[in-house]
Amino acid sequence: MDYQKILNTIEEELSHKNTLGEVASYIPELAKIDAKKFGMYLYCVNKGKFSMGDSKEKFSIQSISKVFTLSIAMKLMGEDLWERVHVEPSGDPFNSLTQLEYEGGIPRNPFINAGALVIADILVSNLKNPKAELLEFVRNIAGDPTIEYDRKVVESEKSTGYRNYALVYYMKALGNIKNEVEPVLDFYFHQCSLAMSCEQLATAFMIFSNQGKMLETGEEILSAKKVKRINSLMQTCGFYDEAGEFSFEVGLPGKSGVGGGIVAIHPEQYSVAVWSPILNEKGNSELGMAALEKLTTMTGVSIF
Amino acid sequence: MDYQKILNTIEEELSHKNTLGEVASYIPELAKIDAKKFGMYLYCVNKGKFSMGDSKEKFSIQSISKVFTLSIAMKLMGEDLWERVHVEPSGDPFNSLTQLEYEGGIPRNPFINAGALVIADILVSNLKNPKAELLEFVRNIAGDPTIEYDRKVVESEKSTGYRNYALVYYMKALGNIKNEVEPVLDFYFHQCSLAMSCEQLATAFMIFSNQGKMLETGEEILSAKKVKRINSLMQTCGFYDEAGEFSFEVGLPGKSGVGGGIVAIHPEQYSVAVWSPILNEKGNSELGMAALEKLTTMTGVSIF
Amino acid sequence: MDYQKILNTIEEELSHKNTLGEVASYIPELAKIDAKKFGMYLYCVNKGKFSMGDSKEKFSIQSISKVFTLSIAMKLMGEDLWERVHVEPSGDPFNSLTQLEYEGGIPRNPFINAGALVIADILVSNLKNPKAELLEFVRNIAGDPTIEYDRKVVESEKSTGYRNYALVYYMKALGNIKNEVEPVLDFYFHQCSLAMSCEQLATAFMIFSNQGKMLETGEEILSAKKVKRINSLMQTCGFYDEAGEFSFEVGLPGKSGVGGGIVAIHPEQYSVAVWSPILNEKGNSELGMAALEKLTTMTGVSIF
Amino acid sequence: MDYQKILNTIEEELSHKNTLGEVASYIPELAKIDAKKFGMYLYCVNKGKFSMGDSKEKFSIQSISKVFTLSIAMKLMGEDLWERVHVEPSGDPFNSLTQLEYEGGIPRNPFINAGALVIADILVSNLKNPKAELLEFVRNIAGDPTIEYDRKVVESEKSTGYRNYALVYYMKALGNIKNEVEPVLDFYFHQCSLAMSCEQLATAFMIFSNQGKMLETGEEILSAKKVKRINSLMQTCGFYDEAGEFSFEVGLPGKSGVGGGIVAIHPEQYSVAVWSPILNEKGNSELGMAALEKLTTMTGVSIF
Repeated sequence: MDYQKILNTIEEELSHKNTLGEVASYIPELAKIDAKKFGMYLYCVNKGKFSMGDSKEKFSIQSISKVFTLSIAMKLMGEDLWERVHVEPSGDPFNSLTQLEYEGGIPRNPFINAGALVIADILVSNLKNPKAELLEFVRNIAGDPTIEYDRKVVESEKSTGYRNYALVYYMKALGNIKNEVEPVLDFYFHQCSLAMSCEQLATAFMIFSNQGKMLETGEEILSAKKVKRINSLMQTCGFYDEAGEFSFEVGLPGKSGVGGGIVAIHPEQYSVAVWSPILNEKGNSELGMAALEKLTTMTGVSIF
Repeated sequence: MDYQKILNTIEEELSHKNTLGEVASYIPELAKIDAKKFGMYLYCVNKGKFSMGDSKEKFSIQSISKVFTLSIAMKLMGEDLWERVHVEPSGDPFNSLTQLEYEGGIPRNPFINAGALVIADILVSNLKNPKAELLEFVRNIAGDPTIEYDRKVVESEKSTGYRNYALVYYMKALGNIKNEVEPVLDFYFHQCSLAMSCEQLATAFMIFSNQGKMLETGEEILSAKKVKRINSLMQTCGFYDEAGEFSFEVGLPGKSGVGGGIVAIHPEQYSVAVWSPILNEKGNSELGMAALEKLTTMTGVSIF
Repeated sequence: MDYQKILNTIEEELSHKNTLGEVASYIPELAKIDAKKFGMYLYCVNKGKFSMGDSKEKFSIQSISKVFTLSIAMKLMGEDLWERVHVEPSGDPFNSLTQLEYEGGIPRNPFINAGALVIADILVSNLKNPKAELLEFVRNIAGDPTIEYDRKVVESEKSTGYRNYALVYYMKALGNIKNEVEPVLDFYFHQCSLAMSCEQLATAFMIFSNQGKMLETGEEILSAKKVKRINSLMQTCGFYDEAGEFSFEVGLPGKSGVGGGIVAIHPEQYSVAVWSPILNEKGNSELGMAALEKLTTMTGVSIF
Repeated sequence: MDYQKILNTIEEELSHKNTLGEVASYIPELAKIDAKKFGMYLYCVNKGKFSMGDSKEKFSIQSISKVFTLSIAMKLMGEDLWERVHVEPSGDPFNSLTQLEYEGGIPRNPFINAGALVIADILVSNLKNPKAELLEFVRNIAGDPTIEYDRKVVESEKSTGYRNYALVYYMKALGNIKNEVEPVLDFYFHQCSLAMSCEQLATAFMIFSNQGKMLETGEEILSAKKVKRINSLMQTCGFYDEAGEFSFEVGLPGKSGVGGGIVAIHPEQYSVAVWSPILNEKGNSELGMAALEKLTTMTGVSIF
């Protein structure tokens, strides 16, 4: 199959499309991004690599980072993790306090903000230098030692992340945050601010397509069973309140971020990352969703 | 792969297992079932058929029927259907009025009770003789003209289904039920009371494994696209508040019922039905979940 | 104090006031009422009687009837009543299912619809002929044997009262409705349809101003303690989601209905009824609220 | 009426009563209080003063302070205040985030924590030195320049008040907190830590009994209209989720605190304060409620 042609077609057909949505604005630094950016990178298990557009330009990966921190937490705690965060879809906007209150401080899954904050708390408890170790983990699986936190985005998030402060304090009141609030949020704002390109993201996510092993070296980063759990979570919870729609339209496990990035994987076939900053009303990249839908339609491959 | 051996192993290892759960008791007629019943039927696209235990004994399929009525509704309305019921996981116990109130009378998906009642309303509006036509549809895809409604179960449901009455009246107040309440509930209680065996269920669900076509005759019942939508919904919403767990443990689209039945399909490979009446705390068959988990583990096949 | 002059001033200043609200429309029969109707009747413990406008014209008393049924239920059960309905303000729109779900089927107070339906259930259980006995009770305290149910309103409510059906079925599912649904709702729709004039209402409510005794005969209808309980409930819960505002603006215990009527009492001083069909956004009579506010301001009497 | 005799009777009959509740424990400093403390102070408009037990011992007034800060906010803003906090009863436990989320960040009333935090934000915005000016206000109306904040309680609240942090951050996310979080909470924790005796509280609350004027000097602290508003709010919202019960049992406007204090007023008759640290399950002083109920029963005076 000529993947490069498929990516070219996606670029042609979608890049000029008028979109109704807007770039994320609640984090001031994200609102400055050029809305026209559009890139895609496809990395196949058989080692083929294909790209189009702004695939090498770094952007704020935001919630996509939740997959990285979950991976580290699973390495540290295994299935014990599920005593502090559940594995069911949320059915509520991604930052709802109501559901949290109703369920006694245990977040529904690790991909809603509350769940990711509990994961952040776990890493702060268990790692000597959480920010450095997360960076090291991501640099390793992305095969690129230049990946960095974007300090401006960190500051921007800190100055406006009142809802995240509320979530952490509320879970601390309910006993599900063990550390002081500041280091947990400092870590969380850093993870969200990771700046990566489509190429780096697709490379990093190859471990989820390749049973937990890095493709080039064969090094096992996660066990196959842990990867199955993470993929299953991406399938059912990876797209805020649009998980069902994405599961149907694209049919692959994946994770989106409000920076406009989406990564998806086809087990034992490929990992793919796409970036376009304009979001639909559910908070996912509009062109990114369309691009992935086109990819699975044109390749005729879906898990269903 | 020796599927018969795998089924035998499942029977041996699980049938004597002590379970902590209980048979569904809120419908008196269901409470009378022998808790020890256990059967399984596997139907492969390459035409192999394998079974164990009580695979030919009929039981109340309950919520599994929601997949049949959704199929008919999609044939009638296509994607227009989603204006009256959404496609996102629920994140709430399966009969919550709160979420319905919050979302203005549009149920989250067609597999929670509220959603299935809207589907029932649609069929009552669009079919001349809804109960007869549903029966005809199911008999056709199951290849068995003896399938019937269980009148005792219908009566039992009618006399205790207050919560379903509340749901229908509430959605009628909000404008999402178009018919009188009685015919909608009469139809709904009938669909839930369908009595089918594992063999009949696995045969009927083969259309979801086989791109919408009946395996023996090649007759197209649903388009491939509609099947993809239904499979995607079974993957994300088929197991009440345990969809995430099932997606991980088993990794297949499926649907459970409080009668203790579960059906699952592996696209282009097989459909499988299992029955054991004792339910776990989430309302799914305890042994049924375990049996399907063993099946995908032993066959080494999962969609992740 | 010249009460007649005060009533005349109220009529003059308010009757030509333009109002932004609308007549209740969800019950078709109520939507037919002439929006310009305006009447008021003041009945003093020292036996003075004063009136203005349409004070002798009958209208649908709707929720005001909840005070009558509560009175009968308290005569029957005393404080045991509070095991089936609570006495706290609701803090939610008057027909919320969410709060009911959250609190296990026990309504917050007897003046929200759910609570009044539980009271109706209690009367259906305890009275031989509930509709006749309610009529007898009201005719007795109003001193007028001509008071009747309005059959057209009953039919109108039955054909559109889906939300009340939902409430009753839901509470029946939760065990807090003991009778079949139909007789409970038939009774409830009848009580709401009672047609009474301001004069009749003010006369009937005199028992709440006069320690439970009828003013003319001295006959004790309710003990002083039960009256204190009912007055306290009218004070904190009598005005849907506007109880706090009414408590401040008027400062008297009272009860409103969507037919545009309001009754209020000043303990040991007077009872007063006012009627104007146009409702504010909280569902209370706009002119009625203003008239009572003027009355307490001009008489200089408030409980605070 | 021999008020001293009534207070003596209350002391005799209640002080040895076994109680099932517990002293507030979520603020460590409060948990240290001797549970047997019991005092009461009655201050009449005709200048009679009566007391019993530990009426001169200072305790943490906690939520009673919300009446003082509301008074200052009303002096500053008048009725404009109600754009940032509503005046309706809450119908939810006193620190519910759910209701706040549902209502867009506008608290139901100024006596739930969320509402008091908005009031604190208003004072921080409008006063030059909020903590000093609050102290001055309270010292003035209590006629006692020795009243102070209890620094140990302030620290204790700060180290455990996660839920209040969550509330403030959440309302800041929704735009209803204008200042930085720290000064608002610092002020709030200080107001809660005010240490006052029953004598001081009853003296301070005399302004609410006396139309806004200090009894001894006649100085007007608040207009009669503002006092009516505050009394009305105490009547409907002063007792968390027990406002309806208190309104019936005692029949007076009042305010309780988790330190075990309750203050109530009878307009133009008296103000009264009572203290006993053991709380009932709704968070109000058990003996305090009983003492006030006895007082109104024995004096035969209630507003209903």
